[in-house]
Amino acid sequence: MISRPAVWTARTSVSCWRHRAAFHAALEASAAISRRWSSAPVRGVSAMEDILARVVAPLPSYETRDKSPPPPEPHSLEFMNFYRSLEKEDKVDFLLKLSQDYEVDHQSVAELAVKLLDNQLRDLATILQVEDRLRYSLTPRYKHLFCHISRVEGGVKFLVDLRADVLEIITSKVSESPHIRDLNGTLRGLLSEWFSVGLLHLERITWQSPCEILQKISQYEAVHPVRNWTDLKRRVGPYRRCYAFTHAAMPGEPLVVLHVALTEDISDNIQSIVREFATFDSEEDVNKINSAVFYSISSTQAGLQGVELGNYLIKKVVRELQSEFPHMAQFSSLSPIPGFSSWLQGLLNQYRKEGRGFDLLSEQEWREVEKATDSSPGTQATDSLRKLISTGEWMRSDRLSSVLEPVLMRLCAWYLHGEKRRGYALNPVANFHLQNGATMWRLNWRADTSPRGVANSCSIMVNYRYFLKETPKNSALYLQNKAISASEQVLGLVSQFQKNSKL
Amino acid sequence: MISRPAVWTARTSVSCWRHRAAFHAALEASAAISRRWSSAPVRGVSAMEDILARVVAPLPSYETRDKSPPPPEPHSLEFMNFYRSLEKEDKVDFLLKLSQDYEVDHQSVAELAVKLLDNQLRDLATILQVEDRLRYSLTPRYKHLFCHISRVEGGVKFLVDLRADVLEIITSKVSESPHIRDLNGTLRGLLSEWFSVGLLHLERITWQSPCEILQKISQYEAVHPVRNWTDLKRRVGPYRRCYAFTHAAMPGEPLVVLHVALTEDISDNIQSIVREFATFDSEEDVNKINSAVFYSISSTQAGLQGVELGNYLIKKVVRELQSEFPHMAQFSSLSPIPGFSSWLQGLLNQYRKEGRGFDLLSEQEWREVEKATDSSPGTQATDSLRKLISTGEWMRSDRLSSVLEPVLMRLCAWYLHGEKRRGYALNPVANFHLQNGATMWRLNWRADTSPRGVANSCSIMVNYRYFLKETPKNSALYLQNKAISASEQVLGLVSQFQKNSKL
Amino acid sequence: MISRPAVWTARTSVSCWRHRAAFHAALEASAAISRRWSSAPVRGVSAMEDILARVVAPLPSYETRDKSPPPPEPHSLEFMNFYRSLEKEDKVDFLLKLSQDYEVDHQSVAELAVKLLDNQLRDLATILQVEDRLRYSLTPRYKHLFCHISRVEGGVKFLVDLRADVLEIITSKVSESPHIRDLNGTLRGLLSEWFSVGLLHLERITWQSPCEILQKISQYEAVHPVRNWTDLKRRVGPYRRCYAFTHAAMPGEPLVVLHVALTEDISDNIQSIVREFATFDSEEDVNKINSAVFYSISSTQAGLQGVELGNYLIKKVVRELQSEFPHMAQFSSLSPIPGFSSWLQGLLNQYRKEGRGFDLLSEQEWREVEKATDSSPGTQATDSLRKLISTGEWMRSDRLSSVLEPVLMRLCAWYLHGEKRRGYALNPVANFHLQNGATMWRLNWRADTSPRGVANSCSIMVNYRYFLKETPKNSALYLQNKAISASEQVLGLVSQFQKNSKL
Amino acid sequence: MISRPAVWTARTSVSCWRHRAAFHAALEASAAISRRWSSAPVRGVSAMEDILARVVAPLPSYETRDKSPPPPEPHSLEFMNFYRSLEKEDKVDFLLKLSQDYEVDHQSVAELAVKLLDNQLRDLATILQVEDRLRYSLTPRYKHLFCHISRVEGGVKFLVDLRADVLEIITSKVSESPHIRDLNGTLRGLLSEWFSVGLLHLERITWQSPCEILQKISQYEAVHPVRNWTDLKRRVGPYRRCYAFTHAAMPGEPLVVLHVALTEDISDNIQSIVREFATFDSEEDVNKINSAVFYSISSTQAGLQGVELGNYLIKKVVRELQSEFPHMAQFSSLSPIPGFSSWLQGLLNQYRKEGRGFDLLSEQEWREVEKATDSSPGTQATDSLRKLISTGEWMRSDRLSSVLEPVLMRLCAWYLHGEKRRGYALNPVANFHLQNGATMWRLNWRADTSPRGVANSCSIMVNYRYFLKETPKNSALYLQNKAISASEQVLGLVSQFQKNSKL
Repeated sequence: MISRPAVWTARTSVSCWRHRAAFHAALEASAAISRRWSSAPVRGVSAMEDILARVVAPLPSYETRDKSPPPPEPHSLEFMNFYRSLEKEDKVDFLLKLSQDYEVDHQSVAELAVKLLDNQLRDLATILQVEDRLRYSLTPRYKHLFCHISRVEGGVKFLVDLRADVLEIITSKVSESPHIRDLNGTLRGLLSEWFSVGLLHLERITWQSPCEILQKISQYEAVHPVRNWTDLKRRVGPYRRCYAFTHAAMPGEPLVVLHVALTEDISDNIQSIVREFATFDSEEDVNKINSAVFYSISSTQAGLQGVELGNYLIKKVVRELQSEFPHMAQFSSLSPIPGFSSWLQGLLNQYRKEGRGFDLLSEQEWREVEKATDSSPGTQATDSLRKLISTGEWMRSDRLSSVLEPVLMRLCAWYLHGEKRRGYALNPVANFHLQNGATMWRLNWRADTSPRGVANSCSIMVNYRYFLKETPKNSALYLQNKAISASEQVLGLVSQFQKNSKL
Repeated sequence: MISRPAVWTARTSVSCWRHRAAFHAALEASAAISRRWSSAPVRGVSAMEDILARVVAPLPSYETRDKSPPPPEPHSLEFMNFYRSLEKEDKVDFLLKLSQDYEVDHQSVAELAVKLLDNQLRDLATILQVEDRLRYSLTPRYKHLFCHISRVEGGVKFLVDLRADVLEIITSKVSESPHIRDLNGTLRGLLSEWFSVGLLHLERITWQSPCEILQKISQYEAVHPVRNWTDLKRRVGPYRRCYAFTHAAMPGEPLVVLHVALTEDISDNIQSIVREFATFDSEEDVNKINSAVFYSISSTQAGLQGVELGNYLIKKVVRELQSEFPHMAQFSSLSPIPGFSSWLQGLLNQYRKEGRGFDLLSEQEWREVEKATDSSPGTQATDSLRKLISTGEWMRSDRLSSVLEPVLMRLCAWYLHGEKRRGYALNPVANFHLQNGATMWRLNWRADTSPRGVANSCSIMVNYRYFLKETPKNSALYLQNKAISASEQVLGLVSQFQKNSKL
Repeated sequence: MISRPAVWTARTSVSCWRHRAAFHAALEASAAISRRWSSAPVRGVSAMEDILARVVAPLPSYETRDKSPPPPEPHSLEFMNFYRSLEKEDKVDFLLKLSQDYEVDHQSVAELAVKLLDNQLRDLATILQVEDRLRYSLTPRYKHLFCHISRVEGGVKFLVDLRADVLEIITSKVSESPHIRDLNGTLRGLLSEWFSVGLLHLERITWQSPCEILQKISQYEAVHPVRNWTDLKRRVGPYRRCYAFTHAAMPGEPLVVLHVALTEDISDNIQSIVREFATFDSEEDVNKINSAVFYSISSTQAGLQGVELGNYLIKKVVRELQSEFPHMAQFSSLSPIPGFSSWLQGLLNQYRKEGRGFDLLSEQEWREVEKATDSSPGTQATDSLRKLISTGEWMRSDRLSSVLEPVLMRLCAWYLHGEKRRGYALNPVANFHLQNGATMWRLNWRADTSPRGVANSCSIMVNYRYFLKETPKNSALYLQNKAISASEQVLGLVSQFQKNSKL
Repeated sequence: MISRPAVWTARTSVSCWRHRAAFHAALEASAAISRRWSSAPVRGVSAMEDILARVVAPLPSYETRDKSPPPPEPHSLEFMNFYRSLEKEDKVDFLLKLSQDYEVDHQSVAELAVKLLDNQLRDLATILQVEDRLRYSLTPRYKHLFCHISRVEGGVKFLVDLRADVLEIITSKVSESPHIRDLNGTLRGLLSEWFSVGLLHLERITWQSPCEILQKISQYEAVHPVRNWTDLKRRVGPYRRCYAFTHAAMPGEPLVVLHVALTEDISDNIQSIVREFATFDSEEDVNKINSAVFYSISSTQAGLQGVELGNYLIKKVVRELQSEFPHMAQFSSLSPIPGFSSWLQGLLNQYRKEGRGFDLLSEQEWREVEKATDSSPGTQATDSLRKLISTGEWMRSDRLSSVLEPVLMRLCAWYLHGEKRRGYALNPVANFHLQNGATMWRLNWRADTSPRGVANSCSIMVNYRYFLKETPKNSALYLQNKAISASEQVLGLVSQFQKNSKL
């Protein structure tokens, strides 16, 4: 920060480069802001600068880029150990420093841009070469550091975790430095290369897999938590499959995990998959296996956000299952709907404020709610409804349950199909499967009756079905035109919603 | 080729972009040249164009780059099968077409360069973003294709082989298209990421390794060919180690192989390593193991040229051996000197032409050669000498052998130490080990008495010794200052040469 | 049972065979007794007889014994399934039936005995042949069945479990049939062959071992129960080793498991091994490893009782550890003393009845007990002492603890060293290690402060130390002369006991 | 030998034991004979006696048999090393000494036989116990040694090799000592237990199997020798399967190897299997796989003779193939007919001597032979025929070939079906497959046109077909009634033979 401007000035010489001062100012501002964020006494700023100066090798010139010896491995280890020893706040400072002081050399870039636009440049080979130099000069200096780190043992995992920190800084808005965003972009690019699908290994997890892996599988399973050995054994036992992508550079670490149930028909509830143990020790009867139900998919590495893995895992697993069960015809998820209840609560709240709570249900429905909850019409009924949903009490009453079913089902269909963010489905699980080319196929009532399921999505779950011949087309239509493929059941519920609820 | 200019013109709009015509002309010229090269009737140019148009996905805009569905996998397979089915000449055409028609969009690059230089651009975040766009626009369209190919089974191996073809085109000068060079650069960049050391697996090859691997080890061993099962078993048996790097994306394929002999002293000949079988079935006696002699290192994938593997393999193996034999103190190669004999023949030829053949040997030495070969002084003696070297006859005469030893040893020392190419050692094996930081340690007479050894390097071999504490320094000095670390023996021979031979 | 006598009579012909009637009577009696035991209505006696008649192949004659086709595999499976489907009581009947109806053919044996003693038999070859026939005729018919069963998948495990049932029948005295004892002997002989050490596989269990194995390790650990994943991970982590014998015929099934702690000094308490987690994630420091402490050994297969496994496992592990840590010098167990407390309670009870409870402690000691427990001398003090021991309350009082330490230590030393069963140490753990040649080395106070440890052995544990050079001699002395090798500490405590307690 | 009689006399006390002298004399005689056999100076008889006295532990008494410590492991190693160091002749002496001096204690046996026959013995439990003692006393002392040896590393393999030596002694009639036969029986019994099928591991050998295994597979393949890497790769490649039994105690050692070709129809010649490489690198097309042809089965361990392995291997492989190819319907061998040519030569020779050579062929056939070989009728024609067969010249003449086909085919059918040894098929390959329950299904002309095939069996090979539903029945019929299951083709040829040849 301090010594930089001097060097900077010294090297400024090209006439067309006039925004030096702006740069300077912007950098200072950004650093000031970041300083404000971290109230704790900064740990050894000079220690940070020292270590960076030592371990981040200077960028070789374009000409000698292939003749530069790699920096000694201990440098990478030193960097890794230093970073790991930092407190959280210090990590922010350190990453800011790294991203700002060892970024792209803007001046070189500008010089090459000038050169590229030179009128005299008429030779194709030269143009290509200037472009190549430009490409090289657009490489931030820290990228080389990362490449070296990736080579030492545990280096790739270190970078995955580093990126998780970077993402957290960005998401939590601890820093809004554009350099941090660049750092993120660079890391993501590198990780995308290293975690390219061709380098991943599809592993079937069984009860014979290493305990290390199974413990992680158990730990990472966020969708339907694993309770004990028996529960875990069940999920890798007969009529179940558990697959994971692993990577040579992170041995023993499942990156993304897919749980599959092999069933006769596409399951319409999760209880039969994770609670019932009838088939526990039996042999699989191939004739009873017609469907593969993906009932849980979990990414385990926050630092691999934006690196496509889940999509490819599903595709590979489908192929694997087809080769094991050539006659298998039905592929579908059984997915949770996180966010539905809170969206609904928000909606009810808003309607209440706007005094039009009764728009969501038909008159008949309201009457039934009033009767069942023993409340008077109007505000009180809306409140009763909100309370019912937040407590999940209706689950214990058959009458309430049957009153609410049509209402909640159509609201949920709308939430999944109609609510958008930048044009894509708001619900992240829906967005994931629709990107993969799945069809929003069936909403299921009382599909997850666990407290968690009732609280999150009023017990509703949804099947995103993979019609294999349609998925490429669906995927393209969704990604490019934001068009959602949905079944008649779903579309029917949506149109009921549109008719009934004046949203 | 045909439709491009139209599009081109249509999109040209920025004032500073004036070399359009130049570009156009250059492209046409390049295509014309390439057409001339391939005399054979071109196989379906339109078939090529069709397939490329179909499988090379259009580049998504910068904004939607993360929202684009990957092209369907069959496209990648189609591309791979089509390419594999082509005749050699057609491959050249196809690669030219791919590299020219699906290259970087120069216009976008130019537009962004203009934008970057815009005086009004004073905001740091915007600068960074324009740079990122520029970086994105510098990506050739075919790079995306390669990424998709890397994801299908066998895709990475396909690209390694594709690059081998590209390298052959460049080396053999079949095409000097700058686009082909760009294509090579892009492939090399991708392969460097995918074959980053962190993603490689060090495997010790033993007699228990899969036959598939051992057959390849046997096949690839070019330095000292393997003759039969027994020979092969010997090289993975007691007092020997064989290591290879393998890669998750190319299972069963050793990428670079290192053979090591575990000895008491640093070996001064190859016979004792690959011919003598005294220790064949014995147990290793740890007390007799002080040295690790790297007696063969082979890269197996032409397409990975320029991707550092051998260097890292040696480093990893050193660490592996140190952990197995904590007291091991000596690490050295025992290396062939390919090219020495032909260099020497060339030299003798040139001296003869220049009439100063006798400059290479002292008067005394010439007299002995004359005596031993029964030839008269002058031209005849030079010819005798040339003949001796080309036939290797001297090997059978103790007298000739002792006459020639000092002469050939000092000439060889000069060849290795004094002959340069762009400032670096001309001999590729020397260059490899010196880059790694080894010291040119000892020349060994009668070190390879096989016909091959006598023919290639007059029976001389050389030890490049790895003094572990010095290698980083040596490597840097060599790579940056072209300084060669050499022992007194080698330097003594070099100075003898300089005294005796008026080169 | 019913048809046998007829056959029997029909075949009786040799004059010297006169105890037919006795046999007959004895068999009937034995069957009658067994019928009395099982009060439940016997499940299909005829079903049992049917199946046995079908699946137990008739014994081939001596001449054709190598020319008999093995019975079809389904027979073995049928037998296994039938047996598994039986209720516990029916199993007893079934085993009795099998062992009586398909036993040795006594008549043939007797005939051959007569032949062997024939005065005319003067030819060596003939004698050897008659002996071989005799050997063959001494094979019970069910032995062949067992051999066939061992060949089908899961057959060996079935027989191990079958023997566990047989042992339970014998131990629980449900039947005292001599045929059941013979059945047991036959099974034990077969299992000893199949589980011969040369056929066992020593496996080191780590966190990377299959979950299936680790769950079993966790389950089987009876000595110091495993509480959770972390606890389990600890026992296979740094400074710990876990080894098991497995067998090709029972994949995934550890047969006997040994837990080892690697420590600086021989541990004197179990808390530091299974409770403290200081070293949990650290790397092992070889310099801190001087001792191997066997802190738990568990046999997992009741049916392998009497088949030496633990002894061999310890020996193999010692060799394994010596090759991993060449300087390791100390090998010792840290063993529980099951039965000490209940033995002591029994003793106190008996002394009380005999009115000489005060013989066990010195006067001074009794006074301290009285003071500490606020009880009056005599019976009341004895009762207080008994209560203290049964509740373990003394653990919470430093005073009581220091009063009781010398008393309990010397009583325990006596229990271990002086109490015998058929001349061998009464305590089974002591007996095991003494058979292996270990020395009774050190009693440790407050060595297991868990409720279980206090309840079982008043917190005392003992080290049986393996002085490798002495173990063969010690083992032989113990097994043959019943002499116990013990340290001075132990002998000192024993002599204190002898002085103080008038046992 | 020397000290024994003394002990012997001392222990003789039971009145019924009168053949002591006979025994004594017989032993002396046997030793004398064996001394005569080995002409070489006997290596240290006393060394042998010393080592045996040291390492063969005395037999524990019946009562203490479970309380005896195993002899120290070094004893077993000493025995193994000593034996391995012996010359061939000395091995014979050593084995004789071992089998005689450490055999069964005949006196104990006799005493127990007397006890068993005691009229007073009327108690069932006592009878059973005396029988158990008798069983124990019938165990030769060296059996315990073998058990101990089996426990040390490499011990089982040592015993397998030891038995190979014993078998060679018996087969070559170097010794006809009954003790050696007993030794053989004991070893065979032990090996049968240890190599019981439940303890064997079925392994599929592929190109990915360890080189160590594949080299052995290549080496052991005696039926159709493997020539090189390509040939070997072919036999484990597509449309081929190679299976082996391995055993935990002999890792890396295939015990019996089965080669299978997967074909459309049951192969009628070996060339198409081991010579043609059309399908070499292709993927298997499941639709073209209807038959499994076992074209080579080799036992690798001479010492396991008489231990059923091949039979079980075929059964397991059939099951394996059925699970891989559920629709596979045809299982058959394609087997060589070793011994046919030499049997035929013998026959012709005998007929010639008896002057009735012309009985084997019809008149018409003789005429054709005469014409084709240009020989005169009678003796000369017979000689021509013999020469044709021994040289295999007829292969090169279509005419001769078609003349000889019917003759040789019917003779061969007779050789296989009609020639017996102790009532079973004389040809060992036929005997093996018939024991397994196969049907002699089809003789194939020009099925093995290699020089070896022509020399051994006039190019004829035979399919033994496994009709899975019939094999148990066929096996029992063959083993018990010596009845051969044969097809109409075979029976037709046999009856032609009977009509034509007056054998």
